[in-house]
Amino acid sequence: MQAGIIKLSELIQNEIQSYDIIRDPENLYDPISYILELGGKRLRPLLTLLGTQLYTNNLDKAMIPALGVEVFHNFSLVHDDIMDQAPLRRGKPTVHHKWNANTAILAGDVMLVKAYELIAAVEDQHLRQVMKLFSECATGVCEGQQYDMDFEQSDEVSIEDYLEMIRLKTAVLLGFALELGGIIGGASSEDQALLRSFGENIGIGFQIKDDLLDVFGDEQKVGKQIAGDIIANKKTFLLIKALEKADEATYDQLIDWLEAKDFDPKQKVKAVTAIYKKLGVKEEAEAVMNEYFTQGLASLKKLNVDKMRIASLKAFTLNLIEREN
Amino acid sequence: MQAGIIKLSELIQNEIQSYDIIRDPENLYDPISYILELGGKRLRPLLTLLGTQLYTNNLDKAMIPALGVEVFHNFSLVHDDIMDQAPLRRGKPTVHHKWNANTAILAGDVMLVKAYELIAAVEDQHLRQVMKLFSECATGVCEGQQYDMDFEQSDEVSIEDYLEMIRLKTAVLLGFALELGGIIGGASSEDQALLRSFGENIGIGFQIKDDLLDVFGDEQKVGKQIAGDIIANKKTFLLIKALEKADEATYDQLIDWLEAKDFDPKQKVKAVTAIYKKLGVKEEAEAVMNEYFTQGLASLKKLNVDKMRIASLKAFTLNLIEREN
Repeated sequence: MQAGIIKLSELIQNEIQSYDIIRDPENLYDPISYILELGGKRLRPLLTLLGTQLYTNNLDKAMIPALGVEVFHNFSLVHDDIMDQAPLRRGKPTVHHKWNANTAILAGDVMLVKAYELIAAVEDQHLRQVMKLFSECATGVCEGQQYDMDFEQSDEVSIEDYLEMIRLKTAVLLGFALELGGIIGGASSEDQALLRSFGENIGIGFQIKDDLLDVFGDEQKVGKQIAGDIIANKKTFLLIKALEKADEATYDQLIDWLEAKDFDPKQKVKAVTAIYKKLGVKEEAEAVMNEYFTQGLASLKKLNVDKMRIASLKAFTLNLIEREN
Repeated sequence: MQAGIIKLSELIQNEIQSYDIIRDPENLYDPISYILELGGKRLRPLLTLLGTQLYTNNLDKAMIPALGVEVFHNFSLVHDDIMDQAPLRRGKPTVHHKWNANTAILAGDVMLVKAYELIAAVEDQHLRQVMKLFSECATGVCEGQQYDMDFEQSDEVSIEDYLEMIRLKTAVLLGFALELGGIIGGASSEDQALLRSFGENIGIGFQIKDDLLDVFGDEQKVGKQIAGDIIANKKTFLLIKALEKADEATYDQLIDWLEAKDFDPKQKVKAVTAIYKKLGVKEEAEAVMNEYFTQGLASLKKLNVDKMRIASLKAFTLNLIEREN
């Protein structure tokens, strides 16, 4: 029988907890245990297991590579948090904040090595392909982070640039996680490509959803300050689209808010949100987001797999699509 | 016919120059080209080619993995330079100095990924073993860097700790570079182990030699300020041994110099060097260094390879051992 999401999450949690990385020097390995134990949704390893489960109920071969996917994700969080000077991650101090930047750099480096080591625990027949795909994915994630940093300094970011940035920074890893699971389960090369496409498309959709929730979400459900992106002038889908669509007067208003040094955050959020509403960028973002979700689900449908098997991955995805935080 | 060292160095230089990594985003890839083009002795990829050449004159299969070894080495330099806040590398600005720390972190990350990608270009039959050995090596290098940073804050570093630190931080990569070359060339598992042991032993010897040259080298030949290690209180073999051997009065003198805030650098160098001479730590360092070289060369001798083939690797090593800079 196929395992349900809760069961799979438990399996991942156990795998993480039994991952015995405690060794010397402790200044190197303690931060790794710390970040891995901070929790999170474990979405990426879950996608790997769900990918495998499309083809087999035996998940043994997928467990260690799935852990590798989670370790890689956490490597990227540790290094991104240094670059973004983020003090908190999941409500707790970030690694560079709790220790220092040097420790965070080096702990991240080892995590990237460990991710390779864990993901390499696939069968010999898949090793070369998986190493190649993982290196491509990891390269993409780094490129996406660089584009994200570049965009902060640039006045000319198009929607196309933005979509490519989020594809690289977040979506390719979801695509890889699923494709990896499929490969381990024995998917055909057609199915592998479909799984990757599914993962990338829903990944881009999720990121647009994040942009939307930040501004238009319910503060209590989202669980964090609403419109932090507006306050920080973050180049989201909404802001880029608004700058693109605005008439001259509205454009100037928006620029005034972006350049304002002394401002009341609430007033800025209110004013910028009003501009977004006037320009209809919320609806445009929703339309693009839904297009990515639709494309992703279309790939899912084409898989050469019993419909029953697809059901749990589909239900899981729809759940994520409907989430309000 | 076996290729000589100059020919091999040219091959490596060509491989590095034709490594076409120039792509977008340029803020990510420009620093990588920059550091790779800074030069250096290319010792590690040379060892890989020399390892292969023990078994075959055809080096085609070794070129890309050898490049991967050099890319990995440069990854570690880029990240170490951030951690050490080093402004210069090979007389030129370090990556984090020329760009910034974030760029250096991310460029280093991609280089680690590229190193895996390049080193994975071995034949299928060797892929799993090589990935495993490389991950072990990369883990060791990170552990060594962490111990090095830990030691700066510690008053209780023993010679044993120090030797293990330099083994991890610098010697395991030399061992891996040689073993990798041997594997590609078709070495037996006995020979693989001997090559690794040879590389690690001479690597530790070279590091002790570096410590000696810093204090007792000829300033003009070494090409940098003499005794930078003494001025910076660096925990070298000499300092650790001196603290270990000193009688109470000498120990107090040494501690006074280590704790001095306002001092004339020349005076400090002169005084500490005098203490080293009095305690005979130079001779002890030389004895330990020679022991590692002897052990390394003994492994070389045991290789199941025609003596003629060993000659060029041996000559190259003896040359390095005799170097005065």
